[in-house]
Amino acid sequence: MSAGQIDILVSEVGPRDGLQNVKRVMPTAIKHRWIAALAAAGLREIEVGSFVSPKLLPQMADTDEVAREARKIDGLTVLALAPNVKGAERGIAAGVHKLSFPVSASRAHSLANIRMTPEEAIEQVRQACQLGNAPPVEVGISTAFGCTIEGEVSEDRVMQLAAKLAAAGATSVGLSDSTGMANPAQVKLMFTRLYREIGDRAGAAHFHNTRGQGLANVVAALDAGVTTFDASQGGLGGCPYAPGATGNIVTEDLVWLLESMGLRTGIDLDRLIAARAILAEGLPGEPLYGHLGKQA
Amino acid sequence: MSAGQIDILVSEVGPRDGLQNVKRVMPTAIKHRWIAALAAAGLREIEVGSFVSPKLLPQMADTDEVAREARKIDGLTVLALAPNVKGAERGIAAGVHKLSFPVSASRAHSLANIRMTPEEAIEQVRQACQLGNAPPVEVGISTAFGCTIEGEVSEDRVMQLAAKLAAAGATSVGLSDSTGMANPAQVKLMFTRLYREIGDRAGAAHFHNTRGQGLANVVAALDAGVTTFDASQGGLGGCPYAPGATGNIVTEDLVWLLESMGLRTGIDLDRLIAARAILAEGLPGEPLYGHLGKQA
Repeated sequence: MSAGQIDILVSEVGPRDGLQNVKRVMPTAIKHRWIAALAAAGLREIEVGSFVSPKLLPQMADTDEVAREARKIDGLTVLALAPNVKGAERGIAAGVHKLSFPVSASRAHSLANIRMTPEEAIEQVRQACQLGNAPPVEVGISTAFGCTIEGEVSEDRVMQLAAKLAAAGATSVGLSDSTGMANPAQVKLMFTRLYREIGDRAGAAHFHNTRGQGLANVVAALDAGVTTFDASQGGLGGCPYAPGATGNIVTEDLVWLLESMGLRTGIDLDRLIAARAILAEGLPGEPLYGHLGKQA
Repeated sequence: MSAGQIDILVSEVGPRDGLQNVKRVMPTAIKHRWIAALAAAGLREIEVGSFVSPKLLPQMADTDEVAREARKIDGLTVLALAPNVKGAERGIAAGVHKLSFPVSASRAHSLANIRMTPEEAIEQVRQACQLGNAPPVEVGISTAFGCTIEGEVSEDRVMQLAAKLAAAGATSVGLSDSTGMANPAQVKLMFTRLYREIGDRAGAAHFHNTRGQGLANVVAALDAGVTTFDASQGGLGGCPYAPGATGNIVTEDLVWLLESMGLRTGIDLDRLIAARAILAEGLPGEPLYGHLGKQA
Protein backbone atom coordinates (compact mmCIF):
# COMPACT_ATOMS: atom_id res chain seq x y z
CA MET A 1 0.00 0.00 0.00
CA SER A 2 1.27 3.43 -0.89
CA ALA A 3 1.99 5.66 2.07
CA GLY A 4 2.76 8.78 0.05
CA GLN A 5 0.90 12.07 0.10
CA ILE A 6 -2.35 12.36 -1.74
CA ASP A 7 -4.36 15.30 -3.08
CA ILE A 8 -7.72 13.58 -3.38
CA LEU A 9 -9.24 10.89 -1.19
CA VAL A 10 -11.11 8.28 -3.22
CA SER A 11 -13.50 6.56 -0.85
CA GLU A 12 -14.51 3.14 -2.16
CA VAL A 13 -18.18 2.45 -1.47
CA GLY A 14 -18.62 -0.68 -3.59
CA PRO A 15 -18.79 -3.14 -0.65
CA ARG A 16 -21.67 -1.05 0.74
CA ASP A 17 -23.48 0.99 -1.89
CA GLY A 18 -22.61 -1.38 -4.71
CA LEU A 19 -23.39 -4.67 -3.01
CA GLN A 20 -26.59 -3.49 -1.36
CA ASN A 21 -27.98 -2.65 -4.79
CA VAL A 22 -27.40 -6.01 -6.41
CA LYS A 23 -29.58 -9.01 -5.70
CA ARG A 24 -26.86 -11.59 -5.29
CA VAL A 25 -25.12 -11.89 -1.93
CA MET A 26 -21.33 -11.86 -2.12
CA PRO A 27 -19.85 -14.57 0.14
CA THR A 28 -18.13 -13.15 3.22
CA ALA A 29 -14.76 -14.72 2.39
CA ILE A 30 -14.77 -13.03 -1.02
CA LYS A 31 -15.67 -9.69 0.58
CA HIS A 32 -12.57 -10.05 2.76
CA ARG A 33 -10.37 -10.75 -0.28
CA TRP A 34 -11.92 -7.99 -2.36
CA ILE A 35 -11.49 -5.37 0.35
CA ALA A 36 -7.90 -6.52 0.96
CA ALA A 37 -7.15 -6.24 -2.77
CA LEU A 38 -8.69 -2.76 -2.95
CA ALA A 39 -6.62 -1.64 0.02
CA ALA A 40 -3.50 -3.19 -1.49
CA ALA A 41 -4.14 -1.15 -4.66
CA GLY A 42 -3.85 1.97 -2.51
CA LEU A 43 -7.42 2.79 -1.52
CA ARG A 44 -7.18 4.37 1.93
CA GLU A 45 -10.84 4.43 2.87
CA ILE A 46 -13.45 1.76 2.18
CA GLU A 47 -17.09 1.70 3.21
CA VAL A 48 -17.30 -1.98 4.04
CA GLY A 49 -20.98 -2.46 4.74
CA SER A 50 -24.14 -1.25 6.39
CA PHE A 51 -25.40 -1.90 9.92
CA VAL A 52 -28.99 -2.38 8.90
CA SER A 53 -31.34 -5.24 9.61
CA PRO A 54 -30.36 -8.35 7.65
CA LYS A 55 -34.07 -8.75 6.93
CA LEU A 56 -34.00 -5.53 4.95
CA LEU A 57 -30.65 -6.09 3.27
CA PRO A 58 -29.40 -9.68 3.44
CA GLN A 59 -26.40 -8.59 1.36
CA MET A 60 -25.19 -6.65 4.42
CA ALA A 61 -25.83 -9.31 7.07
CA ASP A 62 -22.12 -9.96 7.60
CA THR A 63 -21.09 -6.33 8.04
CA ASP A 64 -19.87 -6.83 11.62
CA GLU A 65 -17.53 -9.60 10.53
CA VAL A 66 -16.41 -7.80 7.38
CA ALA A 67 -15.64 -4.66 9.39
CA ARG A 68 -13.61 -6.59 11.97
CA GLU A 69 -11.56 -8.25 9.26
CA ALA A 70 -11.01 -4.96 7.43
CA ARG A 71 -9.78 -3.36 10.67
CA LYS A 72 -6.74 -5.64 10.46
CA ILE A 73 -5.56 -3.97 7.26
CA ASP A 74 -2.77 -1.58 8.11
CA GLY A 75 -3.44 2.04 7.15
CA LEU A 76 -7.01 1.49 5.97
CA THR A 77 -9.82 3.70 7.23
CA VAL A 78 -12.80 1.40 7.73
CA LEU A 79 -16.10 3.14 7.24
CA ALA A 80 -19.59 1.65 7.55
CA LEU A 81 -23.07 2.98 7.19
CA ALA A 82 -25.49 3.21 10.10
CA PRO A 83 -29.06 4.33 9.52
CA ASN A 84 -29.71 4.90 13.24
CA VAL A 85 -28.27 4.77 16.76
CA LYS A 86 -28.67 1.02 16.98
CA GLY A 87 -26.56 0.61 13.85
CA ALA A 88 -24.00 3.02 15.26
CA GLU A 89 -23.69 0.87 18.39
CA ARG A 90 -22.99 -2.16 16.22
CA GLY A 91 -20.39 -0.15 14.33
CA ILE A 92 -18.65 0.93 17.53
CA ALA A 93 -18.61 -2.69 18.74
CA ALA A 94 -17.03 -3.75 15.44
CA GLY A 95 -14.40 -1.03 15.79
CA VAL A 96 -15.02 0.95 12.62
CA HIS A 97 -12.95 4.14 12.23
CA LYS A 98 -15.85 6.18 10.93
CA LEU A 99 -19.61 5.92 10.65
CA SER A 100 -21.60 7.28 7.75
CA PHE A 101 -25.22 8.30 8.16
CA PRO A 102 -27.62 8.78 5.26
CA VAL A 103 -29.85 11.80 5.73
CA SER A 104 -32.18 12.73 2.94
CA ALA A 105 -33.09 16.28 1.99
CA SER A 106 -36.37 15.02 0.57
CA ARG A 107 -38.99 14.18 3.20
CA ALA A 108 -40.67 11.63 0.93
CA HIS A 109 -37.37 9.90 0.13
CA SER A 110 -36.36 9.94 3.79
CA LEU A 111 -39.58 8.23 4.82
CA ALA A 112 -39.30 5.67 2.04
CA ASN A 113 -35.60 4.97 2.66
CA ILE A 114 -35.20 4.97 6.43
CA ARG A 115 -38.78 5.44 7.71
CA MET A 116 -37.82 8.69 9.45
CA THR A 117 -38.32 12.34 8.65
CA PRO A 118 -35.15 14.35 7.98
CA GLU A 119 -35.54 15.90 11.45
CA GLU A 120 -35.70 12.48 13.08
CA ALA A 121 -32.61 11.44 11.12
CA ILE A 122 -30.72 14.48 12.42
CA GLU A 123 -31.68 13.45 15.94
CA GLN A 124 -30.22 9.98 15.30
CA VAL A 125 -26.96 11.61 14.16
CA ARG A 126 -26.89 13.75 17.32
CA GLN A 127 -27.39 10.73 19.57
CA ALA A 128 -24.84 8.64 17.68
CA CYS A 129 -22.23 11.39 18.09
CA GLN A 130 -22.81 11.31 21.84
CA LEU A 131 -22.33 7.56 22.25
CA GLY A 132 -19.32 6.45 24.25
CA ASN A 133 -16.34 5.73 21.96
CA ALA A 134 -18.22 7.17 19.00
CA PRO A 135 -15.92 7.52 15.99
CA PRO A 136 -16.25 10.48 13.64
CA VAL A 137 -19.69 10.55 12.07
CA GLU A 138 -19.96 11.56 8.42
CA VAL A 139 -23.20 12.38 6.68
CA GLY A 140 -24.03 12.26 3.00
CA ILE A 141 -27.13 14.31 2.26
CA SER A 142 -29.00 12.20 -0.26
CA THR A 143 -31.37 13.66 -2.86
CA ALA A 144 -29.30 16.85 -2.51
CA PHE A 145 -29.57 17.44 -6.26
CA GLY A 146 -33.13 16.29 -6.81
CA CYS A 147 -35.44 13.48 -5.82
CA THR A 148 -37.15 10.90 -8.00
CA ILE A 149 -40.23 11.18 -5.74
CA GLU A 150 -40.38 14.89 -4.90
CA GLY A 151 -38.63 16.25 -7.99
CA GLU A 152 -36.73 19.47 -7.32
CA VAL A 153 -35.19 19.85 -3.89
CA SER A 154 -34.69 23.33 -2.47
CA GLU A 155 -31.04 24.40 -2.25
CA ASP A 156 -31.81 26.37 0.88
CA ARG A 157 -33.29 23.30 2.54
CA VAL A 158 -30.12 21.31 1.75
CA MET A 159 -27.93 24.03 3.24
CA GLN A 160 -30.05 24.32 6.37
CA LEU A 161 -29.85 20.57 6.78
CA ALA A 162 -26.05 20.67 6.41
CA ALA A 163 -25.77 23.35 9.09
CA LYS A 164 -28.03 21.41 11.46
CA LEU A 165 -26.04 18.22 10.91
CA ALA A 166 -22.73 19.97 11.61
CA ALA A 167 -24.28 21.44 14.77
CA ALA A 168 -25.48 17.96 15.74
CA GLY A 169 -21.88 16.76 15.74
CA ALA A 170 -21.26 15.40 12.23
CA THR A 171 -17.58 15.83 11.43
CA SER A 172 -18.30 16.12 7.74
CA VAL A 173 -21.40 16.61 5.62
CA GLY A 174 -21.27 15.77 1.91
CA LEU A 175 -23.77 15.90 -0.93
CA SER A 176 -25.10 12.77 -2.61
CA ASP A 177 -26.77 12.25 -5.94
CA SER A 178 -27.93 8.66 -5.76
CA THR A 179 -30.19 8.88 -8.79
CA GLY A 180 -27.88 10.66 -11.21
CA MET A 181 -29.92 13.84 -11.42
CA ALA A 182 -27.10 16.32 -10.76
CA ASN A 183 -25.53 18.50 -13.42
CA PRO A 184 -22.14 20.24 -13.28
CA ALA A 185 -23.53 23.76 -12.95
CA GLN A 186 -25.63 22.69 -9.97
CA VAL A 187 -22.76 20.71 -8.44
CA LYS A 188 -20.42 23.67 -8.55
CA LEU A 189 -23.03 25.97 -7.04
CA MET A 190 -24.10 23.58 -4.29
CA PHE A 191 -20.60 22.65 -3.11
CA THR A 192 -19.56 26.30 -3.21
CA ARG A 193 -22.53 27.09 -0.98
CA LEU A 194 -21.74 24.10 1.26
CA TYR A 195 -18.22 25.40 1.91
CA ARG A 196 -19.64 28.82 2.76
CA GLU A 197 -22.19 27.21 5.05
CA ILE A 198 -20.10 24.75 7.05
CA GLY A 199 -16.48 25.47 6.09
CA ASP A 200 -14.08 22.59 6.54
CA ARG A 201 -16.88 20.27 7.59
CA ALA A 202 -17.94 20.16 3.94
CA GLY A 203 -17.55 16.53 2.96
CA ALA A 204 -17.56 14.08 0.09
CA ALA A 205 -19.18 14.25 -3.31
CA HIS A 206 -21.17 11.12 -4.01
CA PHE A 207 -22.24 10.79 -7.64
CA HIS A 208 -23.98 8.07 -9.58
CA ASN A 209 -23.50 7.60 -13.28
CA THR A 210 -27.15 6.98 -14.16
CA ARG A 211 -27.07 9.27 -17.20
CA GLY A 212 -23.35 9.06 -17.83
CA GLN A 213 -22.71 12.46 -16.25
CA GLY A 214 -20.79 11.28 -13.18
CA LEU A 215 -17.26 12.32 -14.14
CA ALA A 216 -18.52 15.61 -15.59
CA ASN A 217 -19.91 16.33 -12.13
CA VAL A 218 -16.56 15.42 -10.58
CA VAL A 219 -14.85 18.11 -12.64
CA ALA A 220 -17.33 20.68 -11.36
CA ALA A 221 -16.92 19.49 -7.76
CA LEU A 222 -13.13 19.73 -8.04
CA ASP A 223 -13.60 23.30 -9.20
CA ALA A 224 -15.60 23.99 -6.05
CA GLY A 225 -12.82 22.58 -3.88
CA VAL A 226 -14.07 19.07 -3.10
CA THR A 227 -11.26 16.71 -2.07
CA THR A 228 -13.14 13.47 -1.26
CA PHE A 229 -15.07 11.44 -3.84
CA ASP A 230 -17.08 8.27 -3.35
CA ALA A 231 -16.88 5.67 -6.13
CA SER A 232 -17.41 1.97 -6.57
CA GLN A 233 -15.34 -0.55 -8.44
CA GLY A 234 -16.99 -1.54 -11.69
CA GLY A 235 -19.74 1.03 -11.11
CA LEU A 236 -21.49 -1.72 -9.19
CA GLY A 237 -25.15 -1.30 -8.36
CA GLY A 238 -26.71 -0.30 -11.65
CA CYS A 239 -30.46 0.00 -11.74
CA PRO A 240 -32.03 -3.18 -13.13
CA TYR A 241 -34.84 -1.15 -14.66
CA ALA A 242 -32.53 1.01 -16.74
CA PRO A 243 -29.94 -1.03 -18.62
CA GLY A 244 -26.78 0.99 -18.98
CA ALA A 245 -27.71 3.15 -16.01
CA THR A 246 -24.75 2.25 -13.87
CA GLY A 247 -24.50 2.70 -10.14
CA ASN A 248 -21.83 4.82 -8.49
CA ILE A 249 -19.18 6.44 -10.61
CA VAL A 250 -16.56 3.86 -11.51
CA THR A 251 -13.50 3.95 -9.24
CA GLU A 252 -11.16 2.95 -12.04
CA ASP A 253 -12.36 5.72 -14.39
CA LEU A 254 -12.31 8.27 -11.54
CA VAL A 255 -8.72 7.41 -10.65
CA TRP A 256 -7.69 7.76 -14.29
CA LEU A 257 -9.40 11.16 -14.45
CA LEU A 258 -7.77 12.48 -11.29
CA GLU A 259 -4.31 11.14 -11.98
CA SER A 260 -4.37 12.39 -15.58
CA MET A 261 -5.15 15.84 -14.18
CA GLY A 262 -2.02 15.60 -12.05
CA LEU A 263 -3.92 14.96 -8.82
CA ARG A 264 -2.41 12.26 -6.65
CA THR A 265 -4.72 9.54 -5.33
CA GLY A 266 -2.09 7.10 -4.06
CA ILE A 267 -3.82 4.38 -6.07
CA ASP A 268 -2.08 1.94 -8.41
CA LEU A 269 -4.44 1.68 -11.36
CA ASP A 270 -3.15 -1.67 -12.58
CA ARG A 271 -3.63 -3.27 -9.17
CA LEU A 272 -7.03 -1.63 -8.87
CA ILE A 273 -8.14 -3.08 -12.22
CA ALA A 274 -6.78 -6.48 -11.19
CA ALA A 275 -9.11 -6.42 -8.16
CA ARG A 276 -12.10 -6.51 -10.53
CA ALA A 277 -11.44 -10.23 -10.97
CA ILE A 278 -12.29 -10.85 -7.31
CA LEU A 279 -15.43 -8.75 -7.60
CA ALA A 280 -16.48 -10.72 -10.69
CA GLU A 281 -15.76 -13.99 -8.89
CA GLY A 282 -17.96 -12.93 -5.97
CA LEU A 283 -20.87 -11.85 -8.17
CA PRO A 284 -20.85 -14.13 -11.21
CA GLY A 285 -22.80 -12.68 -14.12
CA GLU A 286 -23.26 -9.24 -12.57
CA PRO A 287 -22.59 -6.50 -15.12
CA LEU A 288 -19.52 -4.40 -14.37
CA TYR A 289 -18.96 -0.99 -15.93
CA GLY A 290 -16.05 1.28 -16.66
CA HIS A 291 -14.01 2.15 -19.71
CA LEU A 292 -10.64 1.31 -18.23
CA GLY A 293 -11.65 -1.93 -16.57
CA LYS A 294 -12.87 -3.35 -19.86
CA GLN A 295 -9.55 -2.65 -21.52
CA ALA A 296 -7.64 -4.60 -18.89
CA MET B 1 -36.64 21.95 -36.71
CA SER B 2 -36.30 24.47 -33.91
CA ALA B 3 -35.41 27.94 -35.04
CA GLY B 4 -34.91 29.38 -31.57
CA GLN B 5 -31.75 30.80 -30.10
CA ILE B 6 -29.07 28.45 -28.92
CA ASP B 7 -26.14 28.81 -26.52
CA ILE B 8 -24.08 25.86 -27.68
CA LEU B 9 -23.70 24.42 -31.19
CA VAL B 10 -23.64 20.63 -31.17
CA SER B 11 -22.02 19.55 -34.43
CA GLU B 12 -22.98 15.99 -35.32
CA VAL B 13 -20.02 14.13 -36.82
CA GLY B 14 -21.45 10.60 -36.81
CA PRO B 15 -22.02 10.39 -40.59
CA ARG B 16 -18.33 11.20 -41.05
CA ASP B 17 -16.18 10.35 -38.01
CA GLY B 18 -18.49 7.61 -36.82
CA LEU B 19 -19.13 5.86 -40.12
CA GLN B 20 -15.53 6.04 -41.32
CA ASN B 21 -14.46 4.13 -38.22
CA VAL B 22 -16.79 1.18 -38.60
CA LYS B 23 -16.21 -1.56 -41.13
CA ARG B 24 -19.73 -1.84 -42.45
CA VAL B 25 -20.87 0.57 -45.14
CA MET B 26 -24.18 2.29 -44.42
CA PRO B 27 -26.40 2.31 -47.53
CA THR B 28 -26.76 5.77 -49.07
CA ALA B 29 -30.54 5.84 -48.73
CA ILE B 30 -30.26 5.19 -44.99
CA LYS B 31 -27.65 7.94 -44.67
CA HIS B 32 -30.16 10.33 -46.22
CA ARG B 33 -32.87 9.27 -43.76
CA TRP B 34 -30.54 9.34 -40.76
CA ILE B 35 -29.25 12.83 -41.55
CA ALA B 36 -32.81 14.07 -42.13
CA ALA B 37 -33.90 12.63 -38.77
CA LEU B 38 -30.95 14.21 -36.98
CA ALA B 39 -31.74 17.58 -38.54
CA ALA B 40 -35.42 17.16 -37.65
CA ALA B 41 -34.37 16.60 -34.03
CA GLY B 42 -32.81 20.06 -34.09
CA LEU B 43 -29.18 19.47 -35.00
CA ARG B 44 -28.10 22.52 -36.98
CA GLU B 45 -24.76 21.32 -38.27
CA ILE B 46 -23.88 17.85 -39.52
CA GLU B 47 -20.60 16.63 -40.94
CA VAL B 48 -22.04 14.40 -43.64
CA GLY B 49 -18.97 12.69 -45.01
CA SER B 50 -15.41 12.92 -46.21
CA PHE B 51 -14.09 13.75 -49.68
CA VAL B 52 -11.35 11.14 -49.61
CA SER B 53 -10.56 8.42 -52.10
CA PRO B 54 -13.18 5.66 -51.98
CA LYS B 55 -10.27 3.24 -52.14
CA LEU B 56 -9.09 4.46 -48.76
CA LEU B 57 -12.53 4.76 -47.17
CA PRO B 58 -15.29 2.94 -49.06
CA GLN B 59 -17.71 4.02 -46.30
CA MET B 60 -17.35 7.59 -47.62
CA ALA B 61 -17.65 6.85 -51.35
CA ASP B 62 -21.11 8.44 -51.59
CA THR B 63 -20.21 11.70 -49.84
CA ASP B 64 -20.96 13.85 -52.92
CA GLU B 65 -24.46 12.45 -53.17
CA VAL B 66 -25.06 12.56 -49.40
CA ALA B 67 -23.94 16.19 -49.27
CA ARG B 68 -26.20 17.18 -52.16
CA GLU B 69 -29.19 15.56 -50.49
CA ALA B 70 -28.39 17.15 -47.12
CA ARG B 71 -28.20 20.57 -48.78
CA LYS B 72 -31.95 20.32 -49.39
CA ILE B 73 -32.67 20.35 -45.65
CA ASP B 74 -33.82 23.79 -44.65
CA GLY B 75 -31.66 25.49 -42.03
CA LEU B 76 -29.01 22.76 -41.86
CA THR B 77 -25.33 23.63 -42.15
CA VAL B 78 -23.77 20.88 -44.25
CA LEU B 79 -20.15 20.26 -43.38
CA ALA B 80 -17.81 17.73 -44.95
CA LEU B 81 -14.20 16.81 -44.43
CA ALA B 82 -11.57 17.36 -47.10
CA PRO B 83 -8.04 16.15 -46.55
CA ASN B 84 -6.62 18.21 -49.42
CA VAL B 85 -7.39 20.70 -52.21
CA LYS B 86 -8.78 17.98 -54.44
CA GLY B 87 -11.28 17.05 -51.75
CA ALA B 88 -12.14 20.72 -51.27
CA GLU B 89 -12.94 21.03 -54.97
CA ARG B 90 -15.33 18.08 -54.70
CA GLY B 91 -16.93 19.72 -51.66
CA ILE B 92 -17.43 23.01 -53.49
CA ALA B 93 -19.00 21.15 -56.41
CA ALA B 94 -21.38 19.41 -54.01
CA GLY B 95 -22.32 22.75 -52.48
CA VAL B 96 -21.30 22.12 -48.86
CA HIS B 97 -21.65 25.11 -46.54
CA LYS B 98 -18.37 24.47 -44.79
CA LEU B 99 -15.29 22.35 -45.24
CA SER B 100 -13.35 20.81 -42.39
CA PHE B 101 -9.66 20.01 -42.72
CA PRO B 102 -7.80 17.66 -40.41
CA VAL B 103 -4.36 18.96 -39.51
CA SER B 104 -2.32 16.99 -37.02
CA ALA B 105 0.01 18.53 -34.47
CA SER B 106 2.03 15.32 -34.45
CA ARG B 107 4.29 14.90 -37.46
CA ALA B 108 4.19 11.10 -37.18
CA HIS B 109 0.39 11.05 -36.97
CA SER B 110 0.08 13.50 -39.84
CA LEU B 111 2.22 11.34 -42.10
CA ALA B 112 0.33 8.20 -41.11
CA ASN B 113 -3.10 9.79 -41.45
CA ILE B 114 -2.87 12.01 -44.54
CA ARG B 115 0.65 11.33 -45.85
CA MET B 116 1.61 14.97 -45.43
CA THR B 117 3.67 16.86 -42.88
CA PRO B 118 1.78 19.42 -40.78
CA GLU B 119 3.39 22.17 -42.89
CA GLU B 120 2.13 20.57 -46.11
CA ALA B 121 -1.34 20.26 -44.57
CA ILE B 122 -1.32 23.99 -43.74
CA GLU B 123 -0.43 24.69 -47.38
CA GLN B 124 -3.45 22.63 -48.49
CA VAL B 125 -5.67 24.71 -46.19
CA ARG B 126 -4.24 27.92 -47.65
CA GLN B 127 -4.89 26.78 -51.21
CA ALA B 128 -8.38 25.54 -50.38
CA CYS B 129 -9.28 28.90 -48.86
CA GLN B 130 -8.24 30.58 -52.12
CA LEU B 131 -10.37 28.40 -54.40
CA GLY B 132 -13.21 30.13 -56.22
CA ASN B 133 -16.49 29.82 -54.24
CA ALA B 134 -14.61 28.35 -51.29
CA PRO B 135 -16.90 28.07 -48.28
CA PRO B 136 -15.57 28.73 -44.77
CA VAL B 137 -12.79 26.30 -43.94
CA GLU B 138 -12.64 24.94 -40.41
CA VAL B 139 -9.72 23.03 -38.99
CA GLY B 140 -9.60 20.57 -36.13
CA ILE B 141 -6.06 20.13 -34.87
CA SER B 142 -5.83 16.44 -34.18
CA THR B 143 -3.48 14.92 -31.59
CA ALA B 144 -3.69 18.33 -29.88
CA PHE B 145 -3.75 16.61 -26.47
CA GLY B 146 -1.31 13.80 -27.14
CA CYS B 147 -0.48 11.27 -29.84
CA THR B 148 -0.56 7.50 -29.66
CA ILE B 149 2.58 7.44 -31.83
CA GLU B 150 4.60 10.41 -30.55
CA GLY B 151 3.26 10.54 -27.00
CA GLU B 152 3.25 14.05 -25.55
CA VAL B 153 2.62 16.89 -27.98
CA SER B 154 4.07 20.31 -27.22
CA GLU B 155 1.43 22.88 -26.30
CA ASP B 156 3.52 25.58 -27.93
CA ARG B 157 3.59 23.62 -31.17
CA VAL B 158 -0.21 23.32 -31.13
CA MET B 159 -0.61 27.07 -30.57
CA GLN B 160 1.86 27.94 -33.34
CA LEU B 161 -0.03 25.64 -35.67
CA ALA B 162 -3.34 27.31 -34.75
CA ALA B 163 -1.89 30.76 -35.49
CA LYS B 164 -0.50 29.60 -38.83
CA LEU B 165 -3.82 28.02 -39.81
CA ALA B 166 -5.74 31.18 -38.94
CA ALA B 167 -3.23 33.17 -41.01
CA ALA B 168 -3.68 30.69 -43.88
CA GLY B 169 -7.39 31.55 -43.97
CA ALA B 170 -9.12 29.02 -41.70
CA THR B 171 -12.22 30.65 -40.26
CA SER B 172 -12.02 28.52 -37.13
CA VAL B 173 -9.43 26.27 -35.57
CA GLY B 174 -10.48 23.77 -32.93
CA LEU B 175 -8.68 21.14 -30.88
CA SER B 176 -9.29 17.43 -31.35
CA ASP B 177 -8.59 14.48 -29.10
CA SER B 178 -9.27 11.52 -31.36
CA THR B 179 -7.68 8.96 -29.06
CA GLY B 180 -9.22 10.01 -25.74
CA MET B 181 -5.94 11.15 -24.17
CA ALA B 182 -7.11 14.58 -22.97
CA ASN B 183 -7.83 15.42 -19.36
CA PRO B 184 -9.93 18.31 -18.05
CA ALA B 185 -7.00 20.30 -16.62
CA GLN B 186 -5.23 20.15 -19.99
CA VAL B 187 -8.43 20.94 -21.90
CA LYS B 188 -9.07 24.08 -19.88
CA LEU B 189 -5.49 25.24 -20.26
CA MET B 190 -5.30 24.53 -23.99
CA PHE B 191 -8.58 26.19 -24.97
CA THR B 192 -7.77 29.17 -22.77
CA ARG B 193 -4.47 29.50 -24.64
CA LEU B 194 -6.24 29.00 -27.97
CA TYR B 195 -8.59 31.92 -27.30
CA ARG B 196 -5.59 34.07 -26.37
CA GLU B 197 -3.80 32.98 -29.52
CA ILE B 198 -6.47 33.35 -32.21
CA GLY B 199 -9.43 35.03 -30.47
CA ASP B 200 -12.80 34.41 -32.06
CA ARG B 201 -11.30 32.00 -34.59
CA ALA B 202 -10.99 29.49 -31.75
CA GLY B 203 -13.23 26.62 -32.83
CA ALA B 204 -14.80 23.36 -31.77
CA ALA B 205 -13.83 20.90 -29.09
CA HIS B 206 -13.69 17.39 -30.50
CA PHE B 207 -13.47 14.71 -27.82
CA HIS B 208 -13.57 10.95 -27.92
CA ASN B 209 -14.76 8.86 -25.02
CA THR B 210 -12.04 6.21 -25.16
CA ARG B 211 -11.48 6.21 -21.40
CA GLY B 212 -14.91 7.51 -20.44
CA GLN B 213 -13.58 11.03 -19.82
CA GLY B 214 -15.34 12.77 -22.71
CA LEU B 215 -18.06 14.65 -20.85
CA ALA B 216 -15.62 15.57 -18.07
CA ASN B 217 -13.55 17.26 -20.76
CA VAL B 218 -16.65 19.05 -22.05
CA VAL B 219 -17.16 20.66 -18.63
CA ALA B 220 -13.59 21.94 -18.67
CA ALA B 221 -13.97 23.24 -22.24
CA LEU B 222 -17.19 25.05 -21.33
CA ASP B 223 -15.25 26.69 -18.52
CA ALA B 224 -12.71 27.92 -21.05
CA GLY B 225 -15.48 29.41 -23.20
CA VAL B 226 -15.93 26.80 -25.92
CA THR B 227 -19.32 27.04 -27.64
CA THR B 228 -19.11 24.32 -30.32
CA PHE B 229 -18.80 20.62 -29.56
CA ASP B 230 -18.49 17.70 -31.96
CA ALA B 231 -20.32 14.51 -31.01
CA SER B 232 -21.68 11.43 -32.72
CA GLN B 233 -24.96 9.67 -32.22
CA GLY B 234 -24.51 6.45 -30.27
CA GLY B 235 -20.81 7.23 -29.79
CA LEU B 236 -20.32 5.51 -33.12
CA GLY B 237 -16.82 4.47 -34.13
CA GLY B 238 -15.49 2.68 -31.05
CA CYS B 239 -12.15 1.00 -31.39
CA PRO B 240 -12.59 -2.71 -32.14
CA TYR B 241 -9.41 -3.51 -30.19
CA ALA B 242 -10.68 -1.94 -26.96
CA PRO B 243 -14.20 -3.10 -26.10
CA GLY B 244 -16.00 -0.34 -24.27
CA ALA B 245 -13.69 2.28 -25.72
CA THR B 246 -16.33 4.23 -27.57
CA GLY B 247 -15.77 6.65 -30.40
CA ASN B 248 -16.81 10.28 -30.26
CA ILE B 249 -18.65 11.53 -27.22
CA VAL B 250 -22.28 10.50 -27.48
CA THR B 251 -24.54 13.25 -28.86
CA GLU B 252 -27.49 12.16 -26.71
CA ASP B 253 -25.49 12.27 -23.46
CA LEU B 254 -23.88 15.59 -24.46
CA VAL B 255 -27.26 17.18 -25.12
CA TRP B 256 -28.53 15.96 -21.76
CA LEU B 257 -25.46 17.42 -20.05
CA LEU B 258 -25.76 20.81 -21.72
CA GLU B 259 -29.52 21.16 -21.35
CA SER B 260 -29.40 20.07 -17.69
CA MET B 261 -26.88 22.86 -17.12
CA GLY B 262 -29.37 25.31 -18.56
CA LEU B 263 -27.53 25.70 -21.87
CA ARG B 264 -29.80 25.70 -24.90
CA THR B 265 -28.89 23.42 -27.79
CA GLY B 266 -32.13 23.66 -29.76
CA ILE B 267 -32.24 19.86 -29.83
CA ASP B 268 -35.27 17.74 -28.95
CA LEU B 269 -33.79 14.85 -26.98
CA ASP B 270 -36.70 12.47 -27.58
CA ARG B 271 -36.51 12.94 -31.33
CA LEU B 272 -32.75 12.63 -31.20
CA ILE B 273 -32.98 9.31 -29.37
CA ALA B 274 -35.62 8.13 -31.84
CA ALA B 275 -33.11 8.68 -34.68
CA ARG B 276 -30.94 5.93 -33.19
CA ALA B 277 -33.33 3.42 -34.73
CA ILE B 278 -32.33 4.54 -38.23
CA LEU B 279 -28.65 4.34 -37.33
CA ALA B 280 -29.16 0.82 -35.97
CA GLU B 281 -31.06 -0.16 -39.12
CA GLY B 282 -28.20 1.10 -41.29
CA LEU B 283 -25.50 -0.71 -39.32
CA PRO B 284 -27.07 -3.91 -38.01
CA GLY B 285 -25.15 -5.40 -35.09
CA GLU B 286 -22.87 -2.40 -34.61
CA PRO B 287 -22.54 -1.52 -30.91
CA LEU B 288 -24.08 1.81 -29.97
CA TYR B 289 -23.21 3.63 -26.78
CA GLY B 290 -24.72 6.20 -24.50
CA HIS B 291 -26.56 6.14 -21.19
CA LEU B 292 -29.65 7.94 -22.37
CA GLY B 293 -30.09 6.11 -25.61
CA LYS B 294 -30.20 2.78 -23.81
CA GLN B 295 -32.97 3.97 -21.55
CA ALA B 296 -35.17 4.96 -24.46
